[in-house]
Amino acid sequence: MSLLLPSRIIEKKRGGGELTPEELQGIFEGFLAGDVPDYQMAALLMAIHFRGMGPAELDTLLDLMIRSGAILDLSHLPGPRVDKHSTGGVGDKTSLVLAPLAAELGLFVPMMSGRGLGHTAGTLDKLEAIPGFKTGLSLDAFRSVLEDVGVAMIGQTEEIAPLDRRLYALRDATATVPSIPLIAASILSKKLAEGIQGLVLDVKCGSGSFLPEPDDSRQLALTMTSLGNGRGVRTAALLTGMDAPLGRAVGNGLETREALECLAGNGPRDLTDLSSALTGEMLYLGGLAQSPEEGMRRAREALQEGRAIPRMIRLVERQGGNPSVVEDPGLIPMAPEQDVLTANVSGFVREIEPVALGYGVVEMGGGRRRMEDPVDLRVGFVLSVSPGDWVERGDPLGEIHAADADGLEWGRQTLRRAVVLGPGAPPPRPSLIRERIPAFH
Amino acid sequence: MSLLLPSRIIEKKRGGGELTPEELQGIFEGFLAGDVPDYQMAALLMAIHFRGMGPAELDTLLDLMIRSGAILDLSHLPGPRVDKHSTGGVGDKTSLVLAPLAAELGLFVPMMSGRGLGHTAGTLDKLEAIPGFKTGLSLDAFRSVLEDVGVAMIGQTEEIAPLDRRLYALRDATATVPSIPLIAASILSKKLAEGIQGLVLDVKCGSGSFLPEPDDSRQLALTMTSLGNGRGVRTAALLTGMDAPLGRAVGNGLETREALECLAGNGPRDLTDLSSALTGEMLYLGGLAQSPEEGMRRAREALQEGRAIPRMIRLVERQGGNPSVVEDPGLIPMAPEQDVLTANVSGFVREIEPVALGYGVVEMGGGRRRMEDPVDLRVGFVLSVSPGDWVERGDPLGEIHAADADGLEWGRQTLRRAVVLGPGAPPPRPSLIRERIPAFH
Repeated sequence: MSLLLPSRIIEKKRGGGELTPEELQGIFEGFLAGDVPDYQMAALLMAIHFRGMGPAELDTLLDLMIRSGAILDLSHLPGPRVDKHSTGGVGDKTSLVLAPLAAELGLFVPMMSGRGLGHTAGTLDKLEAIPGFKTGLSLDAFRSVLEDVGVAMIGQTEEIAPLDRRLYALRDATATVPSIPLIAASILSKKLAEGIQGLVLDVKCGSGSFLPEPDDSRQLALTMTSLGNGRGVRTAALLTGMDAPLGRAVGNGLETREALECLAGNGPRDLTDLSSALTGEMLYLGGLAQSPEEGMRRAREALQEGRAIPRMIRLVERQGGNPSVVEDPGLIPMAPEQDVLTANVSGFVREIEPVALGYGVVEMGGGRRRMEDPVDLRVGFVLSVSPGDWVERGDPLGEIHAADADGLEWGRQTLRRAVVLGPGAPPPRPSLIRERIPAFH
Repeated sequence: MSLLLPSRIIEKKRGGGELTPEELQGIFEGFLAGDVPDYQMAALLMAIHFRGMGPAELDTLLDLMIRSGAILDLSHLPGPRVDKHSTGGVGDKTSLVLAPLAAELGLFVPMMSGRGLGHTAGTLDKLEAIPGFKTGLSLDAFRSVLEDVGVAMIGQTEEIAPLDRRLYALRDATATVPSIPLIAASILSKKLAEGIQGLVLDVKCGSGSFLPEPDDSRQLALTMTSLGNGRGVRTAALLTGMDAPLGRAVGNGLETREALECLAGNGPRDLTDLSSALTGEMLYLGGLAQSPEEGMRRAREALQEGRAIPRMIRLVERQGGNPSVVEDPGLIPMAPEQDVLTANVSGFVREIEPVALGYGVVEMGGGRRRMEDPVDLRVGFVLSVSPGDWVERGDPLGEIHAADADGLEWGRQTLRRAVVLGPGAPPPRPSLIRERIPAFH
């Protein structure tokens, strides 16, 4: 019996064996060509979830994913090309802040992003909360915006890593998303096809991340930096905390509003800090800063002075959106039903559970259960408190934005459950940036 | 999010959780109805492979499988209804021996069997090596043969346990066959739907079985006897060795010929012993013998006297086959190419590898890689030696029966590899029947 029979390849991985490049190529290319059915790939993915992949297997899989589609050639651009990717968290709107900011500071940022899935929202949905903004540009239009503005933000096109897109849809339906090698290959295949020279990874750890175990997050970061650097793209990672939402806003349009406020120098501290740190890493990797710290200082200054606002206006304009929104975020459509939830006891905010809030937004119509579901970009929460705050009974905990009365009630219950109040002061929180994994180590 | 979303159910099992009856019903009935796609079921099956199933989960799954189809009512038959099932081994043709034998000794044997898959042959293919023999009878015809002859042998019909049939096809394609709970539920769902009162399980252990680890085989036997007895069917198991082919013949038609010789009192010793032991258990479970040992003695006597031959003739006749074959097995079509392989060194037969021979038959066209593949029932091997024998250089090791010259050459190489000769005497072999797990414990 040939070892290239799909069932024998699955069997080998199931038993903990290491697949050869030929076996990996046979089954993954067969899958993309339609010769290996979804059910065999689903079984293989679950076996990989349990058995993992060795470095050689993973490098082969990444290669197959990248080569399944187009690889952009952006070498004509007159500056370093650097991008950022986050493994996903609740309230994380840093991409909307740092992409125009990094471009303003001299980088080219060819950012291809995803949509929200599970308990986290996606950059594309947030961008589309800006009336008229189009994320479905052709690769030619993408190049043109990038050349003119220094930044372009679109969805993963059909041309880029189609094998990853097919696999991701299957993983989502088969509960095989949280596998370190599969996550690593998926992220890097899309990013490395962008034709970038540097990549900063924001790897979330904590209860609101997809890999809650700190060891898993660290392993994912090391796996991805090693894969990226091995392929000649300077790849660094920050391990950052995701035990509470980032910033105050959770929900697509509300997050966009907060990101624009941040660009104007009025963002919440954690969002401003993280956006500055990630931009600083990008500048360093792109050779435009002597150190990540120097890059971070420059990024923070530029944010405080609102210097990236004109570039964001040009980006929105070039991608079909209403540019007035950038300086007047109130133009972003608001949900019809709004309410403020207040504390029913006095106490310390011991916790704000990100997953509860994230799924709350999904239940209120602001996220997807399936890829094809429509999304109400207006719904969500704006928190009034942060973990560690003291609140008096009757103080506001946060706003609920909902499409109707039912959604409002659901939102109230969700927020009540997510914001945990208690009599004792919570333990001091670890710093937002837990660890830095440099590209050159 | 509802826990009844298939992806959440898969996720729960993946994480080692115990699925509720509602969750199991939701996903398995959804699968049968076409609402849960194959790829989600494949992922769940692989997760079950790694995580197992608890007794309550397994009982629910078995119930869902049985209730997915018809359950025969054979209570009008004027005698005890007892069947046998083997977990599959190379050269195992006991069904063809014991079914008519048990009927001759007073039992009703409503046997529904399967086809060969993997490295083992199937009872249906062996029966069809008898010219004209039909295994695709309707349930009505099946009942009628059973009433008249006391035994009927057909394939699993569309009406019986359709959920199992759908699952089995998927498991075969996704390398999720060797999972103890899935094997147990699959076997018992079909057998318990036969309307039997007693069931003897021949659970193979050793290199040629589907669960080579003795602990796994024992666990499977205990799982199945517990499930069967819990549902009111007296279920016993024999753990039997499958480290070498059973009997001398491997390959469908050749095995049928050997089974008919055994029915005439001229079978190889291991085949005669195991057929007698299994029939003895059947008689005991059916209340027709005071002990399994007494049953075994009567079965062995009947075999030696060829007393089941007339019943086999009636069975073949009623199911459309040429009854002359029973007394003249030479009428079974033979392969055009035949050769005898001889020993190229003198030595002890240290091993005869069953899996190598089984897959050899498949490669020669005598087995299936996929369910729909045609099968050449004539090809295979007839061994001249047994493990432990001393052979001189030039002594015959066995016959190869092939469809053409290429197959003959392949067969020679396979047989050369499978029969391992060595200078030292091999260690004494454990007895064929390793352990008996009674129904009443």
